[in-house]
Amino acid sequence: MSGNSFGKLFSVSTFGESHGPAIGCVIDGCPPGLPLSEADIQPELDRRRPGTSRHVTQRQEPDRVEILSGVYEGVTTGTPIALLIRNEDQRSKDYGNIADSFRPGHADYTYWHKYGVRDPRGGGRSSARLTAPVVGAGAIAKKWLLQQYGTVFKGCMSQLGDIAVPFESWEHVHNNPFFAASADAALIARMEDAMDELRRAGDSIGARIDVVAQNVPVGLGQPIYDKLDADIAFAMMGINAVKGVEIGAGFRSVEQKGSEHGDELTPDGFIGNNAGGVLGGISTGQDIAVSIAIKPTSSIRTPRRSIDKDGKPVTVETFGRHDPCVGIRATPIAEAMLALVLIDHALMHRAQCGDVRVHTPRIA
Amino acid sequence: MSGNSFGKLFSVSTFGESHGPAIGCVIDGCPPGLPLSEADIQPELDRRRPGTSRHVTQRQEPDRVEILSGVYEGVTTGTPIALLIRNEDQRSKDYGNIADSFRPGHADYTYWHKYGVRDPRGGGRSSARLTAPVVGAGAIAKKWLLQQYGTVFKGCMSQLGDIAVPFESWEHVHNNPFFAASADAALIARMEDAMDELRRAGDSIGARIDVVAQNVPVGLGQPIYDKLDADIAFAMMGINAVKGVEIGAGFRSVEQKGSEHGDELTPDGFIGNNAGGVLGGISTGQDIAVSIAIKPTSSIRTPRRSIDKDGKPVTVETFGRHDPCVGIRATPIAEAMLALVLIDHALMHRAQCGDVRVHTPRIA
Amino acid sequence: MSGNSFGKLFSVSTFGESHGPAIGCVIDGCPPGLPLSEADIQPELDRRRPGTSRHVTQRQEPDRVEILSGVYEGVTTGTPIALLIRNEDQRSKDYGNIADSFRPGHADYTYWHKYGVRDPRGGGRSSARLTAPVVGAGAIAKKWLLQQYGTVFKGCMSQLGDIAVPFESWEHVHNNPFFAASADAALIARMEDAMDELRRAGDSIGARIDVVAQNVPVGLGQPIYDKLDADIAFAMMGINAVKGVEIGAGFRSVEQKGSEHGDELTPDGFIGNNAGGVLGGISTGQDIAVSIAIKPTSSIRTPRRSIDKDGKPVTVETFGRHDPCVGIRATPIAEAMLALVLIDHALMHRAQCGDVRVHTPRIA
Amino acid sequence: MSGNSFGKLFSVSTFGESHGPAIGCVIDGCPPGLPLSEADIQPELDRRRPGTSRHVTQRQEPDRVEILSGVYEGVTTGTPIALLIRNEDQRSKDYGNIADSFRPGHADYTYWHKYGVRDPRGGGRSSARLTAPVVGAGAIAKKWLLQQYGTVFKGCMSQLGDIAVPFESWEHVHNNPFFAASADAALIARMEDAMDELRRAGDSIGARIDVVAQNVPVGLGQPIYDKLDADIAFAMMGINAVKGVEIGAGFRSVEQKGSEHGDELTPDGFIGNNAGGVLGGISTGQDIAVSIAIKPTSSIRTPRRSIDKDGKPVTVETFGRHDPCVGIRATPIAEAMLALVLIDHALMHRAQCGDVRVHTPRIA
Repeated sequence: MSGNSFGKLFSVSTFGESHGPAIGCVIDGCPPGLPLSEADIQPELDRRRPGTSRHVTQRQEPDRVEILSGVYEGVTTGTPIALLIRNEDQRSKDYGNIADSFRPGHADYTYWHKYGVRDPRGGGRSSARLTAPVVGAGAIAKKWLLQQYGTVFKGCMSQLGDIAVPFESWEHVHNNPFFAASADAALIARMEDAMDELRRAGDSIGARIDVVAQNVPVGLGQPIYDKLDADIAFAMMGINAVKGVEIGAGFRSVEQKGSEHGDELTPDGFIGNNAGGVLGGISTGQDIAVSIAIKPTSSIRTPRRSIDKDGKPVTVETFGRHDPCVGIRATPIAEAMLALVLIDHALMHRAQCGDVRVHTPRIA
Repeated sequence: MSGNSFGKLFSVSTFGESHGPAIGCVIDGCPPGLPLSEADIQPELDRRRPGTSRHVTQRQEPDRVEILSGVYEGVTTGTPIALLIRNEDQRSKDYGNIADSFRPGHADYTYWHKYGVRDPRGGGRSSARLTAPVVGAGAIAKKWLLQQYGTVFKGCMSQLGDIAVPFESWEHVHNNPFFAASADAALIARMEDAMDELRRAGDSIGARIDVVAQNVPVGLGQPIYDKLDADIAFAMMGINAVKGVEIGAGFRSVEQKGSEHGDELTPDGFIGNNAGGVLGGISTGQDIAVSIAIKPTSSIRTPRRSIDKDGKPVTVETFGRHDPCVGIRATPIAEAMLALVLIDHALMHRAQCGDVRVHTPRIA
Repeated sequence: MSGNSFGKLFSVSTFGESHGPAIGCVIDGCPPGLPLSEADIQPELDRRRPGTSRHVTQRQEPDRVEILSGVYEGVTTGTPIALLIRNEDQRSKDYGNIADSFRPGHADYTYWHKYGVRDPRGGGRSSARLTAPVVGAGAIAKKWLLQQYGTVFKGCMSQLGDIAVPFESWEHVHNNPFFAASADAALIARMEDAMDELRRAGDSIGARIDVVAQNVPVGLGQPIYDKLDADIAFAMMGINAVKGVEIGAGFRSVEQKGSEHGDELTPDGFIGNNAGGVLGGISTGQDIAVSIAIKPTSSIRTPRRSIDKDGKPVTVETFGRHDPCVGIRATPIAEAMLALVLIDHALMHRAQCGDVRVHTPRIA
Repeated sequence: MSGNSFGKLFSVSTFGESHGPAIGCVIDGCPPGLPLSEADIQPELDRRRPGTSRHVTQRQEPDRVEILSGVYEGVTTGTPIALLIRNEDQRSKDYGNIADSFRPGHADYTYWHKYGVRDPRGGGRSSARLTAPVVGAGAIAKKWLLQQYGTVFKGCMSQLGDIAVPFESWEHVHNNPFFAASADAALIARMEDAMDELRRAGDSIGARIDVVAQNVPVGLGQPIYDKLDADIAFAMMGINAVKGVEIGAGFRSVEQKGSEHGDELTPDGFIGNNAGGVLGGISTGQDIAVSIAIKPTSSIRTPRRSIDKDGKPVTVETFGRHDPCVGIRATPIAEAMLALVLIDHALMHRAQCGDVRVHTPRIA
């Protein structure tokens, strides 16, 4: 409850720093009887882990997960599931130069002023590395939701800097290093060129990521104030570097009229999905559709003005191994966060209302 | 913890339905010793209440607040503060026609499927009327934050449908019926015309609202995952009809480079505010800057296709008294939600780290 | 979450002071579809209310409850249920003499030092009057548990000062002013004499109360650390004036051998109930059996040494209307608290494990 | 929040099973700036660990603790502190015979019916081994409370079966294998004989443990319902095998008169401590005095009647390595739980009321 747990009934308490001995989490509230082993979790971690292409950080972390508890003879027992991932490729010296000054756009400044002490190695706890335990927990949530309701999660990058990536099909997402839902080779090449250019320039860039959940039961969400969409916004804005969140039509709603925005209903289901799958804070059975804005990485080689701990002006250039676009690896993270929100609300719904009443409404 | 409370340490538990006997809330965790009376709360409720111009619902609710507890001889005692607002102008018959069918874009459908029972009078608990208790609680939060840190809250409408409202000065916000930070009479007239036209057409429109908090202490926020910005996103997305939330540069971050986005620091403070006052989930001392997208009201006179409880096709037209743009009254609500997030994090910070270390950094 | 809420999933947030305008609570998480009206709640409040015999405080409070929300057409809707009880017979002048000094054994001293401000009228929030909203909430919990599982709650006074009250039958509890499970007229007369003597002497006395829940499903409780028995201990020790809690054999366990204490099992059920219905923090299906020690009232006419706010020695005599044995009215309170714990764990169980597997095991 | 976390602001989430790969916990909310290393924690674990005398289980567990996070250069950083203890001496075969039947007085029965699946090795999660992580967390709480307020914790066994152990002095506690606060060699010998006899007989026995906290600030506790004493009762009843909890005079209060029970105040402090350091749910500055009843171990060699999973009658005899009196090792556990309650309330107090007002009142 003190800030490092996520979720009320499927509660994930994370720990660890980028360059400490290990990172991990304790998952409390997983329903018993779910078949589970490391093999269910590792593939999701592998989608997120560094070093998979030249466009992401070259830190070599196998991110090998170990289940320490909560599973007996291959089945969850209902007791807490602890996940442990040892850090293996820490090069703390890479970061020595920023221990006493603050990178513009980075949490260095705020951690220092909040706590009066700061682990500067690799960003300490503010590192995007700390999304790994959440992705692990999300894998368990995904498995349960799939088994229970047939829910599936999909995500893609829909914009890289000023390059829009039109959606073609989910099947393309894993065929390129950007999670682009596109088979347009020229577009992918353009993205690669843009990334290569950035890397040479020592700069970074933002991105937009879209995630959806399909086959979501109707009725998930506590309408005020633990709304499903409010919790989704919380989860997404909590991902490192996210600065904006939209559900359904999002900011396009501003210019819409009511006669255009409200998704009409027919006996065959909803027509359209401006709602993004949530009305009044409760799931409708439409796809949950979320879009997030990810800012450019703050650790860049380009020299920038800043101050040191004593308030003296300094110039900061960040060396070390960083993602020039943290958005690239954000897709599996956003999927995991969405899964964690949904399982939590599924359990909350079951507590108050018993089993789900309406499962898969037909969608027109 | 069951869904109707907001905040962990300054915790607001609301109750009530649009046409029930009363609405209100219990505020738990207010620091003792704060001078407080109804006169501190009523003005904020008056900013939000219906019937103040022809552009909002004509329901006549005085929204008179009564403090039931937690205050002794004009000072808070540290015990729960209960706020009670009696409903006075319920015309339940206005809503009889929608008791058995679902308005497109409205929570009718989801409440019904979640609970199997629904109070259809005026939208029941899904009514925007339920933001009143939160505005009341927010008034208390604002008073404490002002006294403690000098924090102030400001908000305005920055877009109405396709009409952008350029920011001129906060002083204009209360001189027009739209919370526009503009003294441009032609612009205000254009907004009035647009609203009149919508009302005639029986339609509704969306809006964008901006809110800021100034003089925020450095260091508020629990970095993962109860980040300050995550909680702001939760609070804002939890306001009725909100579909998008941005902090600082928001979705503009997608196209920014790192060398452009990261706010540089000088001994005199930050240069710029792409961060929106939050880095790594912790406040920087810059203004907290938030922008939200509000969808058009779903209760409109325009006939629309829908279904009834039995899944049969119906045509729905909503009569009764509704805001043609719920965004108009959203500004004080968004300010209140932001204040509630900040006081909660201020208390949380005090718990773990003791008194605030850095209060008002000079901002360049 | 800030201290004035009870329960996680059936969460009761109370408010009010003894001599403020009103007391009450917000109940969040009640399952929808439960038939409910004030008539379900009032009888439980009447069992607890003052003025029912000469052995309890003569304050005349009708304790009339009003449901403000969460019920539509006689059925709970799943939204928060607010209960309001107006205070009617406050005579604040009765308490004026203790506004600046501290009654020995009373919360005066601690409230003052904690908050730096204190509502001294009738004990303010520390008054036993604040158990009324909880009894109201407990009535709803009882109704749901009865409907869902057939669970029933019973309680009695088993000791008044040094007078032991041997258990005969639950049917006698409502036939005497002490909640004694006895039809022994001589014993009841002895209790009446003892109380009359105390009242004359301006003194007070302690009591022991036993409560049981019957027909409890097997499996309720989160084993470490939200154990069912831990939450029962929390609930019971939270009742005003309680200084000790036992489950099952309680302190008799200290002298028991393992071969004597562990309740053997047969195909027909458990033999004995040293466990008090809980093993490893989870309900067994045996009766939940709890016993509590209630200290003597601290507000007595007998002069006692104390200090005032400035630390100066004073003599304190408390006039006004007080219960000479707060234990007398504690039985319905303890039942209510037990019901609140059980419904919370029933909902929590349903969240994680789905519907109850084993309902009513046969008990030998 | 799902049941395996303890504390709201200094929140300890534990994980692990008796015979799984590891046990441990994540401590969330520890204030930054506290000097900390494994050397602060290991001594408390050593006081609790098995194998230290012939009167406790002979399982050989070094209980070596590793800090995985939250500490940088020997100082806490304010981020979560993860503690890991690998299990080393699991002999799962010892327990094979009870995998399909239920030990009388043991959690076997309830875990099975709750979850439908159970880790039977060494009692799985219901093992007293799971108190080790809590003792580790308690060591950190103790260190902070000592540094901040001078608070110290002491505990002893005051009764072993029917052998009362009169309190002489805290200094004796560590000079005998029973945590007896006595230097009476004859008494200790009698206790040793009693234990030897029990072990030969294959039986077990209960015990009473007393713990106190000294130098506790005035004002800790949220009066209704997160009372300090309610949380202490929760914490104590949550320790394995505890069946009763008393604060101060406890069950002796039943026979006390008000004129006897209420601790009088003088300018030099309180006279007596019937309150046990808590009035109205808030600490008084007197010693916090708690007494608990611990039932006899349920795993005994003596044959007992039970049933198997199919409800068939069986005879159960438990072999393996068990404590014949779990009370012996309970003293450090009870101290740790008390420390965890106090730090949580200290932080909660700081959140709402700022720094402690009255620290160490002189006690007469």
